[in-house]
Amino acid sequence: MSAPRRVTVLGAGSWGTTFAQLVADADPSARVVVWGRDAAVTEEISRAHANSRYLKGLRLPAGVSGTTDLAAALGDVDDVVLAVPVQRLRGVLATAASHLAPRPGGSSTGPTVISLLKGLELETHLRVSQVVREVLGDLPFAVVSGPNLAREIAERRPCATVAAAEQEDIADRAAALCATDYFRPFTARDVIGVEVAGAAKNLLAVGVGLAEGLGLGDNAKASVIALGLAEVTRLVVAMGGSAATVAGLAGAGDAFATCASTLSRNHRLGVGLSQGRPLQEVLDGLGGTAEAVGTARSITALAEGAGVAMGVIEQVAAVLVEGRDPRDAALHLLSQPLRDERLPWR
Amino acid sequence: MSAPRRVTVLGAGSWGTTFAQLVADADPSARVVVWGRDAAVTEEISRAHANSRYLKGLRLPAGVSGTTDLAAALGDVDDVVLAVPVQRLRGVLATAASHLAPRPGGSSTGPTVISLLKGLELETHLRVSQVVREVLGDLPFAVVSGPNLAREIAERRPCATVAAAEQEDIADRAAALCATDYFRPFTARDVIGVEVAGAAKNLLAVGVGLAEGLGLGDNAKASVIALGLAEVTRLVVAMGGSAATVAGLAGAGDAFATCASTLSRNHRLGVGLSQGRPLQEVLDGLGGTAEAVGTARSITALAEGAGVAMGVIEQVAAVLVEGRDPRDAALHLLSQPLRDERLPWR
Repeated sequence: MSAPRRVTVLGAGSWGTTFAQLVADADPSARVVVWGRDAAVTEEISRAHANSRYLKGLRLPAGVSGTTDLAAALGDVDDVVLAVPVQRLRGVLATAASHLAPRPGGSSTGPTVISLLKGLELETHLRVSQVVREVLGDLPFAVVSGPNLAREIAERRPCATVAAAEQEDIADRAAALCATDYFRPFTARDVIGVEVAGAAKNLLAVGVGLAEGLGLGDNAKASVIALGLAEVTRLVVAMGGSAATVAGLAGAGDAFATCASTLSRNHRLGVGLSQGRPLQEVLDGLGGTAEAVGTARSITALAEGAGVAMGVIEQVAAVLVEGRDPRDAALHLLSQPLRDERLPWR
Repeated sequence: MSAPRRVTVLGAGSWGTTFAQLVADADPSARVVVWGRDAAVTEEISRAHANSRYLKGLRLPAGVSGTTDLAAALGDVDDVVLAVPVQRLRGVLATAASHLAPRPGGSSTGPTVISLLKGLELETHLRVSQVVREVLGDLPFAVVSGPNLAREIAERRPCATVAAAEQEDIADRAAALCATDYFRPFTARDVIGVEVAGAAKNLLAVGVGLAEGLGLGDNAKASVIALGLAEVTRLVVAMGGSAATVAGLAGAGDAFATCASTLSRNHRLGVGLSQGRPLQEVLDGLGGTAEAVGTARSITALAEGAGVAMGVIEQVAAVLVEGRDPRDAALHLLSQPLRDERLPWR
């Protein structure tokens, strides 16, 4: 018999904690540790198998424990799951680096790094896989992303997702890590597409929130999503990714779920801005991280670098970054000349 | 000065009547006629510029009138818009044929036929453009399709759509016919993709209704849409259409709007079936045409003919056509082996 699989999740928020549940449900013999900075949260995970701050009512399997001790969390681990806010990732990885360095014999013997993050690093505009490589070197890497509202998964309601890695065996490994009878990961090889689509999804959610706040209706919201996804597709393809990824679970699927859930922070951010409230006031009221403002700058920069013209996403970014009036942004989009759907915005 | 444009809409339901409003708003000098079978409806359109049966509160522009006289409606017309139920189309066109025959000098001098229909003909499994060609011959043809809930457009709330034709000038003509400051058609050349995506969308709406009725949550609904759209993409590509069409306004966009609107008949059909009620009882309670049952047979037949394996859509079709238990269908999908997202179902 082999030793139990040791999996550590960095980040004790709602998605990180829920993913720990998935890993334990997928393999009841696994030893799953959730690392967080707040001892009250991690102690409740160990003691009561609960996380009442982020997931009221959640009941974690017995194999899951919590800790604030990063060295202990990472000692001799098989898989490291990243679930901290994107802008805090580099700092956490820098501290973790000595525990996670590739072992002798090449990357196949090091721990596998599995990202749950959706966003880009401010200033550098790097994807999470690039930040990981810069800080930790060439460890096996996968990203899990899709229509994954944590609350529903914690309740063990059914859901599909994508587990993407450049190497097929790593994608298979990441998928097997979290596959249960209520959570179905499909494998993919397009890390770029999954990461960029996941980040850009935040902006589409803001756009849908803006449309909702302005009372524009379901047609307008659907138009924002479809036109925005076409822009994301052009960006992903220009960066070397695949159009099918954006049309799949990690692109369209994630956008559907986020936009259907009026509880998402980015959606509420859009609604708040549509009411003419100042950005900082709306952000202060959200009670958590809205990745959209940073993402707006980074996506815009990536699109400029790749020579990809944006329409919907450019207007959402202008509302977020330059304080553009949402009504002006909507009118601008509606006054564009008629053109082929597959041509870029002028 | 040229003569006023003469446009006839065949079908006085909610979308046909709303499209008449669009044409009149786009060109206030146009003479727009709505043909229908029910004199009470068409007389109200002429007399009161209203259609209280299908669109309460609608106020049509002065240039729109109604008639039950098909010969008068089609005499010397520039554009014919198809807005009758798909299964009634062939009969209407057969009666209309003598008035719509191509004129001497080739197709460019005949009326342009613009389809608003989403569905396939039962028994033959033909697309609307194919039925039109069989009955009327080689007239210029375009299809307008997208996230177009009629009620919102009648209220002049903003919306985008696709106007597709094999010839670019016909697509441009169809787009210009309905472009207003609240309705933005994007042109396309992929008639096959738009027609098949529009038909298949009905099945996705039933699938989302099933998921909702079973209480599966937003992740499951988004997974149904994204996995289903991937299946539609494979079918469209196998039939000679384009993947980008399915990812665009006429595919993903339409699916978003339909699935966001819990009022759609196909959505309510799914919810009703999820409660274990018999198909006919649910259909009787819908108060209008649900194209999904016929579409299920035709899409399944087209997929078999094209050698395309379906997963989500096959299960939705089994619920509709064979009376399969919706819970069994969901469990079947969740018990599939792990696989690459881009591979077909086994």
